[in-house]
Amino acid sequence: MSGGIDVVFLGTGGSLPTKERGLPSVALRRNGELILLDCGEGTQRQMMHAGLGFNRPTIILISHLHGDHILGLPGLLQTMSSLARDKPLDLYGPKGLMKFLNLIYKPLGYPANFKVRAKELSPGQEVDRGEYLIRTTLAKHDIPCIAYSIEEKERPGRFHPEKAKRLGVPEGPLWGELQHGKAVRVDGKEIRPNDVVDSPRSGLKVVYAIDTRPAESVRRLAKGADLLMHDGGFAEERRPKAQEYYHSTAREAAQLAKAAKAKRLAVVHISAVTRDDSVLLREARKIFKQTLVPKDFQTLALKPLK
Amino acid sequence: MSGGIDVVFLGTGGSLPTKERGLPSVALRRNGELILLDCGEGTQRQMMHAGLGFNRPTIILISHLHGDHILGLPGLLQTMSSLARDKPLDLYGPKGLMKFLNLIYKPLGYPANFKVRAKELSPGQEVDRGEYLIRTTLAKHDIPCIAYSIEEKERPGRFHPEKAKRLGVPEGPLWGELQHGKAVRVDGKEIRPNDVVDSPRSGLKVVYAIDTRPAESVRRLAKGADLLMHDGGFAEERRPKAQEYYHSTAREAAQLAKAAKAKRLAVVHISAVTRDDSVLLREARKIFKQTLVPKDFQTLALKPLK
Repeated sequence: MSGGIDVVFLGTGGSLPTKERGLPSVALRRNGELILLDCGEGTQRQMMHAGLGFNRPTIILISHLHGDHILGLPGLLQTMSSLARDKPLDLYGPKGLMKFLNLIYKPLGYPANFKVRAKELSPGQEVDRGEYLIRTTLAKHDIPCIAYSIEEKERPGRFHPEKAKRLGVPEGPLWGELQHGKAVRVDGKEIRPNDVVDSPRSGLKVVYAIDTRPAESVRRLAKGADLLMHDGGFAEERRPKAQEYYHSTAREAAQLAKAAKAKRLAVVHISAVTRDDSVLLREARKIFKQTLVPKDFQTLALKPLK
Repeated sequence: MSGGIDVVFLGTGGSLPTKERGLPSVALRRNGELILLDCGEGTQRQMMHAGLGFNRPTIILISHLHGDHILGLPGLLQTMSSLARDKPLDLYGPKGLMKFLNLIYKPLGYPANFKVRAKELSPGQEVDRGEYLIRTTLAKHDIPCIAYSIEEKERPGRFHPEKAKRLGVPEGPLWGELQHGKAVRVDGKEIRPNDVVDSPRSGLKVVYAIDTRPAESVRRLAKGADLLMHDGGFAEERRPKAQEYYHSTAREAAQLAKAAKAKRLAVVHISAVTRDDSVLLREARKIFKQTLVPKDFQTLALKPLK
């Protein structure tokens, strides 16, 4: 059962870190599992500071193979191994991920105390994780870059035994039928599921689109997201630079969030040149009010609406 | 002219970082140049916090090719490039360094705005850096690991023009001869260099031996060092672990510093298991009083004695 998703911004910087902002990484905590989005250099120490732990069920999603998004991976795996992790770890990323792992990880002679189940994804591919679905699309960067959507599945509404009893439905197989959406008959009277079961509970949807120009594919992926984390570390006056490097301005991120009818926007990949992030916030909020420009270690607790 | 060497401990941790201790790296500042000893993950941000700058003349010495000593290198080079470094950078390390660079650095598509002059060294090899000499030896680890000595050359003593004048030596070529150690004759009287020139000024000697068991080769290299930085992050009660992983206890580091007649010892590579570093200090100081167990960002200003 989902109790929501906690978002921990581990590294909100761009490719060039600053004293205040680490290299890209965001952690989602969901039902005891850790979902790590990118793993820039230094992520393992950011995780220590955030108290995230190295032996919980973990899945890592890599957006693309630029160094600033993956160079924390070998050290993180090494640290997990040193700390005697025993759970397997799932790792997803674009084509080339396995080659990177083979190049960097194996020759360094790290011990492999636990299994790393790595898989390359093509943009568009989905991964069914049981309680949630990972959907992907191609972002708009200078190398193949995946935008991810983590979508909790709809869960059945709550069943009210006292209502069933009041309507004369005896405890037993008929309860199960009602819970599975079937009407039942008791003493010639029809009892419908919505007499005793609440409406299905919708899950949360969190979208991560970093290192990208505004893209129609991302807008579609982000439709109705509870949280959209989007590249947007450039102020409007530096838009030509954002274009040149295949990034977005905060305002462009806001426009996309608005078009996607997202509920909230977190602007990430803050350029080191952007000394004053209040400019980003101001420019984005003119378009999309529910914007934040998170600092490192800022957290956000997302709860399903019903 | 040397005004001494400033030592900045950037990462004093072992292969597993902690909240307090980063992965291995030490910076030496000497006469405007930065000498970086190892470059663990996160070194670039530690450098930012220490205010070291990315465009000064820089030389990086890598002890060995375990990930915790080199995984900060690609990101550091990328950051230097992003910040439009224009000066070449000299990089030295053991055999395999070039392969690592080719594997990790080039495929990630980093721009190369400046020249990286990388060179693999065999233990024992020397590098003449003009004002100082780098000497190397093989440390005692489970893979080839180089211990480094940075030795400032002896500089000529100060010449006193007023003494020369008083002794009747006219300004001109004779002054040069005296400065170069030759006696001269003026009106039949012999003037010796030490009448007008102070004794040669000895330089500083700094030795870095990390990831090593106590080794005779390191003792020889460290002879008379002004500062010996030595692996020693294990307390005596964990000596079997130190032996197993080819590291040293703080006490063993102290014994080596004493045998080498070093002037000062800094114990580095502090194991994450060592929660209380005062134990290391106590155990080492029983053997060698001039020991410190530096914290991250601690600095040490070394001055030549004369």
